[in-house]
Amino acid sequence: MASSSSNVASAPASEPVRAQLQGAEADALITSTDPEHPANLICELCRDFYTLGWVTGTGGGISIRHGKHVYLAPSGVQKERIKPEHIFVLPFAQSSVPKPGSQRDFLRIPTRVGLKESACTPLFWNAFTLRSAGACIHTHSQHAVLLTLLLGKSAKSFRISHQEMIKGVRLGGSGKTLRFFDTLEVPIIENTADEEDLTEGMAKAMEEYPNAAAILVRRHGVYIWGNTWEQAKIQAECLDYLFEMGCKMIQAGLPLVGDD
Amino acid sequence: MASSSSNVASAPASEPVRAQLQGAEADALITSTDPEHPANLICELCRDFYTLGWVTGTGGGISIRHGKHVYLAPSGVQKERIKPEHIFVLPFAQSSVPKPGSQRDFLRIPTRVGLKESACTPLFWNAFTLRSAGACIHTHSQHAVLLTLLLGKSAKSFRISHQEMIKGVRLGGSGKTLRFFDTLEVPIIENTADEEDLTEGMAKAMEEYPNAAAILVRRHGVYIWGNTWEQAKIQAECLDYLFEMGCKMIQAGLPLVGDD
Amino acid sequence: MASSSSNVASAPASEPVRAQLQGAEADALITSTDPEHPANLICELCRDFYTLGWVTGTGGGISIRHGKHVYLAPSGVQKERIKPEHIFVLPFAQSSVPKPGSQRDFLRIPTRVGLKESACTPLFWNAFTLRSAGACIHTHSQHAVLLTLLLGKSAKSFRISHQEMIKGVRLGGSGKTLRFFDTLEVPIIENTADEEDLTEGMAKAMEEYPNAAAILVRRHGVYIWGNTWEQAKIQAECLDYLFEMGCKMIQAGLPLVGDD
Amino acid sequence: MASSSSNVASAPASEPVRAQLQGAEADALITSTDPEHPANLICELCRDFYTLGWVTGTGGGISIRHGKHVYLAPSGVQKERIKPEHIFVLPFAQSSVPKPGSQRDFLRIPTRVGLKESACTPLFWNAFTLRSAGACIHTHSQHAVLLTLLLGKSAKSFRISHQEMIKGVRLGGSGKTLRFFDTLEVPIIENTADEEDLTEGMAKAMEEYPNAAAILVRRHGVYIWGNTWEQAKIQAECLDYLFEMGCKMIQAGLPLVGDD
Repeated sequence: MASSSSNVASAPASEPVRAQLQGAEADALITSTDPEHPANLICELCRDFYTLGWVTGTGGGISIRHGKHVYLAPSGVQKERIKPEHIFVLPFAQSSVPKPGSQRDFLRIPTRVGLKESACTPLFWNAFTLRSAGACIHTHSQHAVLLTLLLGKSAKSFRISHQEMIKGVRLGGSGKTLRFFDTLEVPIIENTADEEDLTEGMAKAMEEYPNAAAILVRRHGVYIWGNTWEQAKIQAECLDYLFEMGCKMIQAGLPLVGDD
Repeated sequence: MASSSSNVASAPASEPVRAQLQGAEADALITSTDPEHPANLICELCRDFYTLGWVTGTGGGISIRHGKHVYLAPSGVQKERIKPEHIFVLPFAQSSVPKPGSQRDFLRIPTRVGLKESACTPLFWNAFTLRSAGACIHTHSQHAVLLTLLLGKSAKSFRISHQEMIKGVRLGGSGKTLRFFDTLEVPIIENTADEEDLTEGMAKAMEEYPNAAAILVRRHGVYIWGNTWEQAKIQAECLDYLFEMGCKMIQAGLPLVGDD
Repeated sequence: MASSSSNVASAPASEPVRAQLQGAEADALITSTDPEHPANLICELCRDFYTLGWVTGTGGGISIRHGKHVYLAPSGVQKERIKPEHIFVLPFAQSSVPKPGSQRDFLRIPTRVGLKESACTPLFWNAFTLRSAGACIHTHSQHAVLLTLLLGKSAKSFRISHQEMIKGVRLGGSGKTLRFFDTLEVPIIENTADEEDLTEGMAKAMEEYPNAAAILVRRHGVYIWGNTWEQAKIQAECLDYLFEMGCKMIQAGLPLVGDD
Repeated sequence: MASSSSNVASAPASEPVRAQLQGAEADALITSTDPEHPANLICELCRDFYTLGWVTGTGGGISIRHGKHVYLAPSGVQKERIKPEHIFVLPFAQSSVPKPGSQRDFLRIPTRVGLKESACTPLFWNAFTLRSAGACIHTHSQHAVLLTLLLGKSAKSFRISHQEMIKGVRLGGSGKTLRFFDTLEVPIIENTADEEDLTEGMAKAMEEYPNAAAILVRRHGVYIWGNTWEQAKIQAECLDYLFEMGCKMIQAGLPLVGDD
């Protein structure tokens, strides 16, 4: 039970206490020989994303929703070295966004001392609840960050058209794919001192831009989601390609929208 | 038979129905312990091309003609994760260009639900029929796309000379290799909303430029072919090198043709 | 004993002679099946750093302090091909900075002919003694070197703010992490003809900038440390990211400090 | 004997015929379980160089002199896929530079049809005879090629000073290492239509610049050598780093020589 675990805050009396799993029952959630089990996939994908420069220096990560469970990487650790036993598991519920710092609601908390759940948890939740996403990727890709700088402080979004790679991005991240002549638009929100304080701004941008497949965070990175981990990864690759191309086009003085 | 397979459209009565292979007979086409069998090679090469940034976000791919069979990767899937059992096989015939969306003529269709043959099929066919190619590679390399943007909308081709790497490219893609002092010319065609609509434009460019070893598609990528998969890959590497060098030379204000 | 080993200089009579380990006793210091043992880690991390372009051409490296022992890579060898048996081991003492060229104080000297201890040894010692660091990384990253050139000869430090990746860097390299709005400052010292002659300049800069997590060396590279090898590596990745971003921002005419 | 092998040209009566090895005797030259045997090393290093972008599209390669034998990769094949059985072996003699196209003097010729010895053979021989080198590396690195373009047609050499990485380069390629304050100079020769026609120009530049550790070939690449394969590789990495840094400095308007 949560209250018997030393690294779990006691729940106030006014809030319901959920059953936190322990030992073998908890480990069963993250133990599988299937390489596509979320606990294995998160480790593999984090290694891949590290190679792409998306999650160096512990930045970024991925969360996967698997049925009624959400799998999360820990915070502040080397993402390319995560192992399944380091994965956090939360029950998924539309109504409850987990609060960073409180591990009250977790089904599984890694036993290794010092591991904390990702500060991105409530931001991943935005994708799960507002877009019914099955996975959400967060990167600190330099292409995303440099793009928000090159576009300038007054730019509220990144817009680009007439690029084949636009066709790999879906309306709202989970709808049908865009067409070559469509204009892709990704809103940009301002960064905050603490990652969890981005939650409201990200939710607001997702509501204002219902067709957006991602949210750029100025001087920080990007959040990208999809119905499945495959669709989230495919869109992350297409969008990162377009962010990089956008940087090069701005630097070469080429217009981002239209085909001139 | 095709009509008994749930993910194959029934052929209209007015068209001849070919024998589609099923089960073990179909799988024999893609099962081999030889790493150079097309079904194995396509998987390996797609992983390599992913690392080079040529086929991220499901874009691009490779098709190999092996005797009387053509091997194709599926469309819209992560190219670096393809397995031999995902490969489509078509009979090769000069006269019949397979229509995208119709799987009537396929010898083997993967049984995994949701796999579609590559939309590039008729474009690969251009290389097989107009150049007798044995393999055709399609990439979304940023070097190819940026080059078509830097050259400007009025440029009908990319021309470069006096580069050692030109010597790795063959006349028409399948003839003798170019010399250092030759001018390499790669035509650029405009992109279309749907990939199969490029078929005619690509064929026209191949006829207008019989010495061209590749066709650039503005804001999209490039198609490159060769007598064998080795020659297609070697030329893809030489051309991508020259596209990258071309971008750098344009940005540095250096002339692409001549040795000044 | 040291005096019986042919590749160890005899200690002058006026200096105390330490016991140098030989044979199995010496090898026990670098033999472990634990991949996180310093002798194994240094080899693995050097391979990783090579891939990142930090230690090509034998440049750069890492030293790890493990209890009362300091582990060092050899000098002038291919860092991506180091094996545990090539590792030097020194006793750690605050008071004694080992002099390059003298192997008198070493606990273990590799038996392979021609291996010399890293010329960076006294610079790593600065991190161990002045910051109580547990590990110190030295890179020749082009981002670090180009940054010192782009900032110009009069710049005494690199300053940047409003970047999410700043949050992965610690006050003084071993204190609490910086915040998004903090300004990160990394002092730049001038290079010297011989690496060991940087020792004093690096120590002086560390004293003048007690909050600095690293020291840039103009036209040379950077020294970065942390309480543990993990913290040193995380900070090296965050700082290298910021050095690269700094170069791009300077080249794009963007201010490094502030959020305009 | 040479005359009994179908892919070996008959020697004219006026020239001495050497004994060419056949079968098991020939294969013994390239068969070893030692990863540092030249036949194994050439394959491993070509894979590494491919990853660095030095030998894509079959360009570039490495030759290693091992006692009285010289090991060579074949020409025009994918360098990252070479196997030991594809390696050519020549006897080493100061006086005889092998002529491209003639395989008369070879000790071992691979039996796979279509393999030709590298067209770089006489250029590697320059390094072996004029500098007593033990290994010679040829790359088509874009950094080398772009540098020769950015320096302009009138530049007869690349000169750079005040870079730490200069210290990894040796006087003449095989002497003592340069110092930080030394000016590194690499001559640039003009490219020719055929690779073997570079032989004389390369030899002339090596005589004019006895301290040069490499020869740049404009619009083509670079030849780099060393006493051993390790020294050749280390210098290739240091020089490629300096070529890349040189390009960036020229593009940023920074002087290459001096420390302003």
